[in-house]
Order: sequence, then C-alpha cells, then structure tokens
Amino acid sequence: MCGVFGVYGHPEAANLTYLGLHALQHRGQESAGIAASDGRRLTLHRGMGQVIDVFTPQHIDRLKGTNAIGHVRYSTSGGSLLKNAQPIAADSTRGSVAIAHNGNLTNAESVRHQLEETGSIFQSESDTEVIVHLMAQSRQGSLEDRVADALTRVEGAYSLLCLSERKMVAVRDPLAIRPLCYGTFPDREGAFVVSSEPSSFALVGAEFKGNLAPGEMLICDDTGVRHSRPFERKSSRTCIFEYIYFARADSVIDGISVYEARKNLGRALAKHDSVQADVVIPVPDSAVPAAIGYAHAAGVPFEMGLVRSPYVGRTFIEPEQSIRHFGVRLKHNAVSEVLRGRRVVVVDDSIVRGTTSRKIVKMLRSAGAREVHLRISSPQIAWPCFYGIDTPTRSELIAQSHTVDEINQYLTSDTLAYLTLEETQRAVLAADEAGRSTDGGATLNGHAHALNGANVRNGNWEAPPDRFCHACFSGDYPVPFQDTPRPRQMRLLDI
Amino acid sequence: MCGVFGVYGHPEAANLTYLGLHALQHRGQESAGIAASDGRRLTLHRGMGQVIDVFTPQHIDRLKGTNAIGHVRYSTSGGSLLKNAQPIAADSTRGSVAIAHNGNLTNAESVRHQLEETGSIFQSESDTEVIVHLMAQSRQGSLEDRVADALTRVEGAYSLLCLSERKMVAVRDPLAIRPLCYGTFPDREGAFVVSSEPSSFALVGAEFKGNLAPGEMLICDDTGVRHSRPFERKSSRTCIFEYIYFARADSVIDGISVYEARKNLGRALAKHDSVQADVVIPVPDSAVPAAIGYAHAAGVPFEMGLVRSPYVGRTFIEPEQSIRHFGVRLKHNAVSEVLRGRRVVVVDDSIVRGTTSRKIVKMLRSAGAREVHLRISSPQIAWPCFYGIDTPTRSELIAQSHTVDEINQYLTSDTLAYLTLEETQRAVLAADEAGRSTDGGATLNGHAHALNGANVRNGNWEAPPDRFCHACFSGDYPVPFQDTPRPRQMRLLDI
Amino acid sequence: MCGVFGVYGHPEAANLTYLGLHALQHRGQESAGIAASDGRRLTLHRGMGQVIDVFTPQHIDRLKGTNAIGHVRYSTSGGSLLKNAQPIAADSTRGSVAIAHNGNLTNAESVRHQLEETGSIFQSESDTEVIVHLMAQSRQGSLEDRVADALTRVEGAYSLLCLSERKMVAVRDPLAIRPLCYGTFPDREGAFVVSSEPSSFALVGAEFKGNLAPGEMLICDDTGVRHSRPFERKSSRTCIFEYIYFARADSVIDGISVYEARKNLGRALAKHDSVQADVVIPVPDSAVPAAIGYAHAAGVPFEMGLVRSPYVGRTFIEPEQSIRHFGVRLKHNAVSEVLRGRRVVVVDDSIVRGTTSRKIVKMLRSAGAREVHLRISSPQIAWPCFYGIDTPTRSELIAQSHTVDEINQYLTSDTLAYLTLEETQRAVLAADEAGRSTDGGATLNGHAHALNGANVRNGNWEAPPDRFCHACFSGDYPVPFQDTPRPRQMRLLDI
Amino acid sequence: MCGVFGVYGHPEAANLTYLGLHALQHRGQESAGIAASDGRRLTLHRGMGQVIDVFTPQHIDRLKGTNAIGHVRYSTSGGSLLKNAQPIAADSTRGSVAIAHNGNLTNAESVRHQLEETGSIFQSESDTEVIVHLMAQSRQGSLEDRVADALTRVEGAYSLLCLSERKMVAVRDPLAIRPLCYGTFPDREGAFVVSSEPSSFALVGAEFKGNLAPGEMLICDDTGVRHSRPFERKSSRTCIFEYIYFARADSVIDGISVYEARKNLGRALAKHDSVQADVVIPVPDSAVPAAIGYAHAAGVPFEMGLVRSPYVGRTFIEPEQSIRHFGVRLKHNAVSEVLRGRRVVVVDDSIVRGTTSRKIVKMLRSAGAREVHLRISSPQIAWPCFYGIDTPTRSELIAQSHTVDEINQYLTSDTLAYLTLEETQRAVLAADEAGRSTDGGATLNGHAHALNGANVRNGNWEAPPDRFCHACFSGDYPVPFQDTPRPRQMRLLDI
Repeated sequence: MCGVFGVYGHPEAANLTYLGLHALQHRGQESAGIAASDGRRLTLHRGMGQVIDVFTPQHIDRLKGTNAIGHVRYSTSGGSLLKNAQPIAADSTRGSVAIAHNGNLTNAESVRHQLEETGSIFQSESDTEVIVHLMAQSRQGSLEDRVADALTRVEGAYSLLCLSERKMVAVRDPLAIRPLCYGTFPDREGAFVVSSEPSSFALVGAEFKGNLAPGEMLICDDTGVRHSRPFERKSSRTCIFEYIYFARADSVIDGISVYEARKNLGRALAKHDSVQADVVIPVPDSAVPAAIGYAHAAGVPFEMGLVRSPYVGRTFIEPEQSIRHFGVRLKHNAVSEVLRGRRVVVVDDSIVRGTTSRKIVKMLRSAGAREVHLRISSPQIAWPCFYGIDTPTRSELIAQSHTVDEINQYLTSDTLAYLTLEETQRAVLAADEAGRSTDGGATLNGHAHALNGANVRNGNWEAPPDRFCHACFSGDYPVPFQDTPRPRQMRLLDI
Repeated sequence: MCGVFGVYGHPEAANLTYLGLHALQHRGQESAGIAASDGRRLTLHRGMGQVIDVFTPQHIDRLKGTNAIGHVRYSTSGGSLLKNAQPIAADSTRGSVAIAHNGNLTNAESVRHQLEETGSIFQSESDTEVIVHLMAQSRQGSLEDRVADALTRVEGAYSLLCLSERKMVAVRDPLAIRPLCYGTFPDREGAFVVSSEPSSFALVGAEFKGNLAPGEMLICDDTGVRHSRPFERKSSRTCIFEYIYFARADSVIDGISVYEARKNLGRALAKHDSVQADVVIPVPDSAVPAAIGYAHAAGVPFEMGLVRSPYVGRTFIEPEQSIRHFGVRLKHNAVSEVLRGRRVVVVDDSIVRGTTSRKIVKMLRSAGAREVHLRISSPQIAWPCFYGIDTPTRSELIAQSHTVDEINQYLTSDTLAYLTLEETQRAVLAADEAGRSTDGGATLNGHAHALNGANVRNGNWEAPPDRFCHACFSGDYPVPFQDTPRPRQMRLLDI
Repeated sequence: MCGVFGVYGHPEAANLTYLGLHALQHRGQESAGIAASDGRRLTLHRGMGQVIDVFTPQHIDRLKGTNAIGHVRYSTSGGSLLKNAQPIAADSTRGSVAIAHNGNLTNAESVRHQLEETGSIFQSESDTEVIVHLMAQSRQGSLEDRVADALTRVEGAYSLLCLSERKMVAVRDPLAIRPLCYGTFPDREGAFVVSSEPSSFALVGAEFKGNLAPGEMLICDDTGVRHSRPFERKSSRTCIFEYIYFARADSVIDGISVYEARKNLGRALAKHDSVQADVVIPVPDSAVPAAIGYAHAAGVPFEMGLVRSPYVGRTFIEPEQSIRHFGVRLKHNAVSEVLRGRRVVVVDDSIVRGTTSRKIVKMLRSAGAREVHLRISSPQIAWPCFYGIDTPTRSELIAQSHTVDEINQYLTSDTLAYLTLEETQRAVLAADEAGRSTDGGATLNGHAHALNGANVRNGNWEAPPDRFCHACFSGDYPVPFQDTPRPRQMRLLDI
Repeated sequence: MCGVFGVYGHPEAANLTYLGLHALQHRGQESAGIAASDGRRLTLHRGMGQVIDVFTPQHIDRLKGTNAIGHVRYSTSGGSLLKNAQPIAADSTRGSVAIAHNGNLTNAESVRHQLEETGSIFQSESDTEVIVHLMAQSRQGSLEDRVADALTRVEGAYSLLCLSERKMVAVRDPLAIRPLCYGTFPDREGAFVVSSEPSSFALVGAEFKGNLAPGEMLICDDTGVRHSRPFERKSSRTCIFEYIYFARADSVIDGISVYEARKNLGRALAKHDSVQADVVIPVPDSAVPAAIGYAHAAGVPFEMGLVRSPYVGRTFIEPEQSIRHFGVRLKHNAVSEVLRGRRVVVVDDSIVRGTTSRKIVKMLRSAGAREVHLRISSPQIAWPCFYGIDTPTRSELIAQSHTVDEINQYLTSDTLAYLTLEETQRAVLAADEAGRSTDGGATLNGHAHALNGANVRNGNWEAPPDRFCHACFSGDYPVPFQDTPRPRQMRLLDI
C-alpha cells in the first residue's frame, strides 16, 4: 500500500506536500519522497523511513517551486531499498518528469523485459519505472499525452501523479481500484491539491472537491485545471479493503464514509450473533468503529480493553530470549480491570496468517477474560492481492486452507465469526453518503447514486457486480493476468 | 515528567530495560538513557529523542552485564540538552554510580550553591546531579547508606534508581509523590525489576509484586533483595494527576486502576450533567476511558469523533504560512460523519492554557457539530507543579485568572464543566482495588485499605487528608519550599 | 582527472581495490566508488569525498566477490554530485555491468542527444553513462564485444574498466591518452590487477607487468587473461602533463619514469639559466624532483624553503575577513631561515591562472627572500584540455593573453622562465627507460624504444610527432571535435 | 603530544582558532576542540578526529565571542575517548572556565585520589581535569590567581591556556618543557594570540612577538595583556625532541630554528661518516632537512627516494591477509629510479621500536638499492617520556636492550649510526638565532643568548646543563617523580 499527494500552484508546495504525506503516513512507513518543480527544473528528495525522519527543514527549503508531488511507500513491488523509493524521476531532452504511484501493474515484468531487450536501462525494481520508460519512448508531445500513451501499454491498478517542470497530471486507472481525490485551497485561488485520501486535506487547510472517476485524468498547468478521459469508460471496482482496514477512519472514499462503513460492519457482526457477552472491545486502532457499531447493536458495553502504544512503527531491537508474544505486546497491552472475569467480544478487521490474533486471544485470557469471542468485520482472506497490497503468498493465508472451525481452534478463541461477502458489501454500501442522504445529491463520479441507492434500499438485496474489488475474499480478479505478477529482483546492489 | 526502569540479575538486563523504557515512553520523549553494570564496571549510553532513536543494537550489545537502569525524560529541571539526559553517572575512588530520577527536588538550587562554594564541579543543569555530589561526599560505606545519607539533605519528589558495579538501589520519597513499583520474572529466579508503572512489566514478561511504600528503599545485590526504611514514616501523597492524565490506562498505581479511575471521573462528570447530547466523544487517547464512563452513565452513544495521528511526537517542520489550527490538526482530526448536525459532549482530561481546547472546539464545529459541550475530568489547574511535572508558570494557567464562564467564553464552547476536587478524589479512590474487592485484601503499603475503603463507602464522604498530592488544583503543597524552585541555567554550553 | 583500479580473481578484491584507490588518491579527491562481483551479482558503493571517508569496513565487507573495479574522481564532466560518482552501473536482461572511466569523451553530448531522442533515460551528467547506454543497446553477446561495439561510437580519451558478474574488461583509447597498466600478484596465481599508475601496485603487493598499448583491450574471465585489439592501430599520444604534474613521482608511465622526467625538466631549466642564486627551492610536493634536478645542474644548494601541510585536501572553513593569501597559506608556509637575505630560485611545475604563483612569490618575499626567480618546468598553458583534465576555460589561462614578461610583472617575481615545448618533450623522453638502458630491452608497447631511443641520442633532435598529447601547450588536439565539448547539466536535481 | 592555540580580543576568535589548530594538526590528530567566550558565557565543541572533521561551519558560527582557546590531542594520559578531548570546561558559582593543556602532570594520580576522597567527581581520565578541580577549590578570587593556586599543587610539564567569560590566561611550567609563544595581529589592535608553535601564526595573519619564559604567565583581559611570574624562577629545560621531530620545520622554538637545527643534525651525522654513498635520501617529511644537511656536508647528491602519501593519518581499513610491510607502504613508497643499483644513505630522525625502520630498509632493498646505510639524527631513545609524549614502555624501546650493532643487525641495514647526546645538543644549539646573528638581539626569555652563544662558539664545548630536557636519551628527568605516572582508567564507560 502507498499514498500519493500533490500540490499545484501554491508557494508552499513542498511544505504542504510534506504535511499531506504525514497525514497519509498510515498508507506506508517504509520510504517517503517529494519532487518539486519551479517552472524550470525539478528537485527530488527521497529517503527510507517515516516522513518526519526523511525530511529536514533544509530539504523542504531546497524543494523549490509552486508544484510538488509526494509519495509514502509500503513495499509491494521491489525490495525495501532506497532506489525503489518514489517519486521516480527522469531527465530527458524533452525535460524532466517525476512520478508517484499507488497501486501495482500486473504486466510490468513483461513490458520491462521488452524495454530492456531494446536497450532501456532500469535503475530500480519498481514497476513504476516501466511507466517512466514508456513515457520516454512516447512520440507524443505534451506531458498528458505521453502519460496516456504510456498507460495504454500497462495493466493493473494505479492512482498516479506526474510532475514536469510546468505541469502536474493526476490519473486513476480504468477500474479506479485505488482511491484518488482532489481539492482546492479556500485562501489561495488557483492552487490545487490531489491526494489518496481526503482526510489529508484538513492538515493543509484544503477543501475536498471530488474523486477522480475511473480512468479520469486531471491536468494542471498555467491555464488552470481540466479533466480528461483518455481511456474507455468502465465502472469502478474500488478496493473494498480500503474501507475495512487501510483508509483513515475520517476519510470519505468515493462517497462512502470509512467510519460509517466500519460501524456498519460491526453492526452486521452483531446482527446474527447470539453470544452472551459482558463487554465488547476493539483491537485498536482500526477496529474501534466496528466495535462501537457492534456494541450499539448488541447492547453490550464498549470498553478499551486493549491499549495501543503510540510509539510503534519503526525498527525495534528484539530481546534475544523468547519473550512470549513479544511482537504483539510491543503494540498492544491488555487492561485487566476491563477484562477480569468477563465474557469478552473482541472485534478485529481481518485475519491474515492468524498469528497475531492468536497472541491477542492469549493475552486477553491471561489478563483474566473468562470467555474470548473473536469477531472479524470482513470475510476470510483467501487470495493474494495483485493491485497494490502487500499480502503474503496464498499458502500463508490461514483461511485458504482452514475452515472457520479450524481457525477458531488454532486461535484458541471460544468462538469465531466472520462476515459474509454479501454482508460486507451491503454494510459498506450502506455508508454511501448519496444513499443515506434524503436528497440523494449527485456525487462526482455520478454513477454511485443510481447504482447503490436502489440496491441498498431494496430488501431483496443483490450485490452490485462492479462497485468493489473483493478479489482477496472471492478470487474474482477484475484485471486479468496471465501468470502471477512477481517483482523483478536486480542483480545489482547499490549499498 | 520522567520514567525510570531497572533490572537486576538478568542476563538481558540492558535489552529488557530498553523495552521497559519503550513501555514508559509516554512519560518522556525528550531523551533516553541506560546504564548497565557487569560486576566490574558501568557502561552508559544516553541520547536525545525517543528510545527507538537513541539505541541501536550495537549500543544494547555494548551495555554489558546483568544489571541496568534506564530513564526517559521530559524536561522539568534543566534545558533540553544531552548533558541533562539521565542516567547521570560518576566515577570515584569508591567505584562508579549511575542515577535515574523521576521527580523534582525543591531545594536543589541552594544545596548546589553550597556544593559549588566548596569546589564541586557540576556537569549538568539537572537537580539530580546534586544527589550524585552528595553521595560522593558521603562518608558512608555502602551504596545504600550513601544514597540515604545524600537524600537526608534534599527535599521534594523522587522515585530514584541507583546502580553501582554490584548493586541496584530503588527508593521513593517519604510522600511517595511519584509512582514506583517492582516485580519478578517467572522464568528467571533471582531476577528483579523496578519501574515507574506496572504496565511496562507485560512487555518484558515480568510479574507485578508491589509498590514501594513512602520512603521505602529496595536493595538488590548478590545476597538477594531486601527492604529498608531509612526515613521517618509518613503517609503517601501520590500525585493525583498520574491517574487523570500521565499514567498509561493499563497501569495500576498504588492499588488504583488508572482505567477505572478515569471511567469513574467520566461517570462523575455525567452525574450532575443536564445537557442533552446526541453523542459523547473523547479527546484521544488519554480521555477515552472518561468518555466511555460518561457515555455509560449518561446513556448517550459513545463515538470516536476525533482520530489521533499515531505518528506525532517528534520534531516537525511547520508550514511558513499560518494554517489555521495547525498544531492541533497535526495531532487530531474530526470525523464529520459522527459530528454533523449533532449535539456533542467532548470529554478531555484537563485544560492548561486553553489554546488547544479552543482549537478542538472550533474543529468540531467546522466538522458540523451543532452544539459543543466540553467536559473536563478534573478540577481547574491553577497552580504550578514543583514535583516533576513541566507545567507553565502560574500566569499562563488560564484557570488562575479566569472563571469557568470566562473560560467557556474563550473556548467558544456552548457549555463547559469541570469536576470539583472532592469529586475528583472520590472518583479516583473509588477505583482502589482494595476498596472495590469484597475481601479487601491487603495492599503492599497497607494503609490504603483502611483509609479509603471506609471513606468511599461512607455516604457522608470526607476527603482523606493525605492520600494524594493535588497541589496543582488546590495550591496545597505537601513539601514546603522557601522560594519558587527555579532550575539553574549553566553559563557553559557544550555544542 | 580520475584514477581507476581493478582486481580480478583475488579473494580480497574489494579490499585491494580500496587500497589501490588510496594509492591513486592524488588523481581525484571528489568522490570514490567500488563495484564488486561474486560471479552472480554486482555490489556497488560510491560516496563523496576521499577514499578513507567513503568506505567503512562494513562497506568493504559487503562488496563481496573476487572481482572489483574502483574509481576516484576529480570532476571533469558533470557537477560535483553523488550521481556523477563512478563506477556507473546498470542492470539488464543480459546481466549487470559497472564502468569506471578515466578520461573524457569529446562527442558525448551529441551521442547522448540521439540516445535520449529514442527514449534512453540518463541518471547522471557523466559522459561515461553514454557508454553504458551504448552497451545496453548493443546486439553483441559477450561483454568484451559489447564494450568494443559501444566504443566505436564515441571519441576522446578513455582508460576504461568494465565489470560484469563474471568478467573484467580493461581498455585504453586508440591514442592511449590516459595511462593504464597491469600486473599480477606473486603470491596468488591467476589474480590480475589493472591500474592508472604502477605506483599503486606496491601497496597491494602486486608486480607491474606492462602498459596497455593504444586501443588495446584486456579480458579477464575464468579462462584467464587475454589481449585483444578491437580498434585500428595508432601511435600513442600519452598526455605529457601526467609526467609534469599529475602522476605520482614513483610511477613509471609507458616506460618513462616520472621522477626522472621531472628531474630532467629541472635540469633543462638550469641549462640556459644565467641567474645567480643562493638557493633553489621547490613548490612542494610535485615540483621537488624538478628543483633537485635544477640544483644538481646549476650547482646551487637545494633547500625546502616551503613546507606543505599534510592535512589539506578536504573542505575547509574559510575565515570571514580576508586574511591575505589565505588559500596558499593553508597549503604552504615559508621557512624564513632558508630564505632570509637570499637570492631564491623557486621551481614550480606549471602556471594556470597565476594567482597561486603570485601569492607564493609574495610569501617568499615577506619571509625575507632578497630575489625571487620563478622557474616553470613546462611551457605556457594556453589551451584547455578536453581529454580529462579539469582546466579552466581558455580566457582564464594567463598565458593565453599575456607574454612571459607580462606574467612576470603580474607575479611580481624578479625573473620568470618556462621551458619550450621541445625542451619539455626532450626532457621527458630522456627519462624513457628503454632509451636510458644499455640493453634497450623491449617495452610492452614495443614502439617506444625504436622511436625515442634514436631521437634522444640524436644531437640534431626532432620532436617525435606522435609520442605525446601536448594540446594544452600547443593547441594541437590529436582527437578532433566539432564544437567545444560542454558537459550536460540536468534539469533534475536529486538532493 | 598536543597543541594549544588561543585568541583574545578578535571578532573571528573561533575561526582563527580553528585555523590555528589546523596549523598545529601535526601535534595531534586524535581529537580537537574549541571553547569560545563572549563576555557572558562559554561555548564548547569537541570531537574525535582531525580539526577538519570535528568542526562544521555551524559549529564555528555557534562558538560566539571574541575570545577562544583550542586544543588538538594525541593521547598521552587517558584513553582515546571523547570525554578525554580538550578543552575541558567547568561551570561554577564563580563562572565558567575552559582549559587546554599540552604536557603531562607527574603527580596527577595522587592529587586526583585526594580530591576524590573528599567528594570531587571526575568526568574524564585526563590529568588536566585535576587542574580544573584544584581551581574550583581555590579560595582565590581572580582567574589568574586560581590558576596559579592550582598549579602550585601539581608537578610536570604544562603549556596551558585558560579561558573564562572575560579573561584568557596562558602559562608555561617552571622548566618550560613544552613550547608556548605569543603574537599580535598587525591589522587588529588589542587582539592577541598564543600558540604552541609560531609556524601557526602565518595562517591566521599574526606576527610572532615572543616565547613565554619558564613559569611565566600571560593574562589577557579588557585592560590589555600583562606578564606575571607566579612561580620561582628556574632555567628552561625545553624538550629537545621538539627540534628533532615534533615541531614543524618552519617553527622557531625559543629562538632556535627547527629547520636549521635539523640541518645541523644532518651535518653532524655526515661529519664523522666514512661510508661511500651514491645518494642521500630522507624518510619524509620530518627527516628532509637533516638529509639535506647531510648531503651538503658529505657532498653526496640528495634525492627524494621515498615518497610520502599526503592522505594518511586517519583510520584505515587494513587488508585481511598479511600484505608485507603494509603499514609502512601505506605511508611511504620507494622510487626505484633513484635507488636501483645505488649505495644509499637514508636519514631518519629517530628509532623507537625499530619495526618501521626495518620495513623501510627492506623496501629500499627491494626497490634495488645496492647498500642501505641508516643514519639517525639523534641519540638512542632508551627512556620513556613522562612530560607529554606518548612513548611506549621502556621494554619496547629497542635501544634500551640492544647495542647499535644488534639494532643494525635487526634492521638488516648495512650500517647504522646515531648521533651522541653531545653532538645532538651542540647541533640544536648552533641553530639558536641569537647565537647565529651578528647583533645577538635579545630574545624574550633573555637567558638564551648569553648561555648558548658563548658555549657554541667555544671549541672546548661543554653541554649547558639546563637548556634542554633530554630524558628520553639520558634518563635524566628534570622533574622528579616517586613512581611511574600511570594514567587512571575509569570504571565508567560512556558510549
């Protein structure tokens, strides 16, 4: 998972991008970078680690110009190396360009092979560099045409920002798998901002204006901002996991409030749940709204039975001897006073390998919980993601090879329950602002209202076929691929 | 505020201390340090910043030995400089000693002046160094006697750890103002651990065994662990603000659960509250339990209307132009879906200057809240702390010069309410585990049960005169002082 | 000016390359880098500064494999930036390759333009990267064929080392403008070493075996070492300035001892000199042998009247106020005892702008010298070098626009004398070992003996037309170029 | 060996001190430091390594004020640790003070023990810190009186600079063992400079004014500069090794030119030498003047048969396998052209353990020398120095247990010769400027002229009893001591 953020036409472009990346930090802590342009040249700085560690005031000061794009990265394609950090930039006779990419291309390896066969030299293992090379070979003239030309040759998920000396282009793939939205600055006319999530706008003082539609392109230059649709029109298949786990709770993605979606998921969990509990607790922070939703619906008291260390997220020295449940204790600790002697429902958003959930169940028991009932606010993850999320290979996914009963046994929980895919989709759709509002105001991408409003209100619900990508639950991959996309590992190591 | 952590008799002493400091990181992020002893010599490493930034695996590896003490610091006495980082260590003909200190001495400046007059050379601005010099001048032989000898000449608050080549000594001041507790390792006989808070024990796999009584000293050497009472017996006056704000929610300090105390404070706020609200939200993270308590007692739905960035806490580059409410937005953001059109009760733990609260009120309103009712789970702070908390000077405390109405007006909230000191003390005492339990089992310091159990159950409640220090609310300072203690600023700057 | 060093087939390849670069440090202090290969992959490390600052033991340890090439750089093409440091490396479907280059291409800019037009993306401003791209586009199979293929498209000076996973290739341009020699390790059969100068062999325990002939290529792989001549045969035009200034005094370049050449230059200066002097002093270190030669020939006592600081060469903080002659004083200081009241001949190797010589003359006078006679052991520099030496533009060369008398006046010396080009060539040739030896043993490149031996002994001397490049003195450029080669400056700045 | 430099009353005090330390870098490369005062406070910066590595422009900028003292260190007392770097500074009720010390105290350990017994806390292993504590305990009022008071309790060698907020004091021990001189700035009235060697004055644009006499103190404050003689008058015993090896060739120490002294030592070597040689070469850089002196006197051609790398002096990564003579090759390399087939006299300044000399002899032979005759421009070193030079223990000195013949055999030289102590003293004294000059102008310390002039001219020469300390040659220690001074090693390690 990654995050992108861009500012056009603002004298503090690099500084605002720095803040925007900070607000997107939950989307990637491995590396960060900003490219800025001042009309004549691009300046670039990238580093490993969190935004706050990568940039000094001197860097921000040297990132001159009124335009900037930034990137935070959690490795999905290419190893955890500085050369794979983004934005990726290149200089050519036609000028310089920098690219920041959230998502993952599914045919990067074969295109790369073709390019290398004719003499292209790659500097990184990143699939994003393929786009840079395709742009360099494009015979098109303008930045936007070269971007569109290059993208016709790639497949997969991308929310992309491109910066040249004088232009910024934002584009979202034809299925709109990864989020991308835009806004303006109330106190600075002509300035424009693009971001993976609208929750990042508050910190920089910007106002949300809309989401990019599937395959939509925004072009910012000194004539203003204009929309373009270089690709064929498709219906969106936004990643449903953004609502379940990735996005920040205060974001509204394509018209759906993440907070509300999560509360709905929690309510859905409670709906058919017959377990008798004394207390409902979340695994913080992502599962808090779902646990609140569960508690409200089930009428069971909500408590914070697990506290989360606010200081985790960077490299940590582990003790040599095996301290039991070390990793999970570093992040969470149980509050005995809430748990002792109680029947506890603990709500989490998902189970990947099952190891963390198992440690949490044991931690709750050793803090005195009489019963531990684990409730997952999504279906079983049984398929890897090839569109930008760093899931393990299929064999490591516990739900790929185990039934719910077997998983429950492994986790040592008293009971375990997931949502069905239908419940999940329904709960998320129910948080659509268009659907909930009485006036049903048009959303930017237009199709949302008609599509969902009807279905959600319809008692005889039928999952809309094309609103979400749910491949990780269903194996139904909206972008086909021939063989499993594997990232390229270079034989050249720069230390 | 600071945190101390020590391990005696464990082969991974430095590593466990590193983890312990991480678990105490909320008590100070300015600097961190560890001193370790291997029976022959002390090794010391200190640095500016968070634990995770200060220590590399190489440092931990070089901090050899089975004994170690550590310190995290938030400056209270002395500037934010490396030389003021702790532990402070000294070498002498009698051997080496390192000291880690949570608290603040009230007569440090006059003792320091006397010491300097006779030729003592100070390396830091820290009041803790006074203790090191007094120990160096002591004619006593053993480490514990030299510590006790030195402490007879100082006044104030201290939870202190001392480490020599072969011994570790822990001591708590006669009023037990700052917390200090101890434990053992189930899987390592003879190993011993001391910490500011018991919540740090889980991460290192230790078991809580008890709290140090007022003026109690623990001596760990190769003959084992023994208790000593070198000072006259007094009743404890533990800082009540530890329960309200400082300590971690999963800690139990001197028999009182911090989580329960905070929930009780929230319940107490709801008790006499007649405001009609649609939703109760906390200012996360510290006010979450109080908001839950309020929600339960008032029967109003609890929601997370403010999300907190998990990545804040270190140096940050501010934008040049004034972005409105920048600082608070960096830390918190409002969830519009929870707030829009609602009557909101927002619970916070305290108000110092009022500037942050004002920004939060405005943020809630601009996210759509129809009414904003601020509820503070403690009384007005009107006096500075001289016992180890870095409060501003009296004139900066808004409650020192303004009535509740005036503060409400400044904050632009619809209504504002505090707890009274009696309500606060009563709520915290009601979380005493001895008082709540049916068997009323003896606590370590013994006095707790008799004292509170009776009072709390007594409808005609009378605040017990000596259980807490509440000087910041009442101006009633349990340790007298002649003139305002001011930290010394050195004329020598080592850059 | 730059230096290259490579080792093939030795288990300590990176370490020996590190030492070899140290011994070539006088050829460039701006950046340093090493690429190593272990048969499967390449590892690369580069950094700004001197060898000793760029590499830690950890770097050397990670530069695994039995083959390595290294580079020290003094910028000639491209700014002083890390991205321009060498070796330059690239990964492709055919494997990885790293290149270290001493010299300068004269048609780099036009080839680069063509490459960019068809989509090649350049990472640096270095002319060396052009070779990397030409190799990537070559349809040839083997490393040596791809190198040869690429080099047919470029012109200029190059002593080049290429490293792939399993091979090392060394090649010298058809005019052999920059030096390149090779050797073996007496205690390690099969190991091979290539270097800019043979003086670097002593430190690594290698033995000099020969110089690469004009256009000669050496190919090292697991079948051994073989020679190849991919280009048409030409006579060498080795840079004469290597003998005058650049090379280390203990080097023998293409059969000519640098020390002897410099002594001969000094002797030649004395030959027609009628000045009456009390003492001869060098500007250390490069002019020491010439001053010794002058002293021997003129019968005037040699003294070290200027001492040189051994600690200069890296970034230095200059005083704010103008201290007179600061730069030169940092490097040299006069010994009054040697100079006071004396008539001084001071020998230097060359004059570029004249500013340093002027300061030295003034320094000698203020140390008490009665007369200062400056003798330059080379002709006037009046033309820029386009083959790898970082000379200023023509207008900054004092000899381009001033007569010797005018220069003498500007320098404030009593007298000033240069050598003629003929004297210079004759003096350097007289140091040819083949010419001097009685047995006239064959040198590697064969042509040397026949060519010079005869001429030098011939009283009626005629400068051999093709032994040296002396374009900086004569404007006679052996490699033609259409327009002045200018390095490309990228519009993309990576900070 | 160490170097000290101080500036008083100059707006660029820290910058000039930085340059002065650079010019004294040959006296110590282990650590460097500067303390500056601006009338109100002291600022201090110290670091490990060379001056150029320790200070950034930011450091110099923050070292505010018109007064500064600096220090470069080569460890003699205390390990190679940052805490032992100088200046050492302390803050007290009377103000702050910083001290920079060249030399070594012979009773530091016993005074330190007494101080620690009464409670003084030491931060370093440096003997210099003893002086700081004695000053802190002094009942005297002024800085100069406290310095004098403290120095009455210590014995040994010291050239000392003290800096307080408003004063700078320089003092030299009663025997003037280490050099210390002073000067002024022609372009800045009232500014004053003190340095270990006058050769450092040129770089900062200062003029030499005189040497401090034995036991003399200089006090700089806002009333100007005044001399004081707080100790009893003694005759000087300046370290003779300063002339032989330590000082820079362009320095004049106590009226004696180092360059001339070295040339005289070389001439003295040639005087009785009957060896037939083809060439005389020095071991550069320190033995160059002696070799020139030898060559002039013996009528044998002088050549630079060994070149010295200008880039050595800092930490270096050694190759794993044993490369023969690695250390010496790193520093020197032989010029075969000068040596091949020749009978070589090689002049060096001294032999300590003999290992380096042995490697040089072997290097010369393998470069082709037919005979190698080693000539040492000083007597045999058979006693350790306790006055500030880091000589090894007695048992490691080859001359302590071996005859000249045995040493010659070990070194594998053809012949070996030293100077006698009388020859050495005589040669150095003959370089006294007072003695050499016709007008015999008075030197600052006055006694020099009368003492030496007579003796040197006297054919029946008798070594003046008190002009030099020559304990390393003779075992005649001018400052007595009870037991061998051993530096204290702390049991506290700050990493």
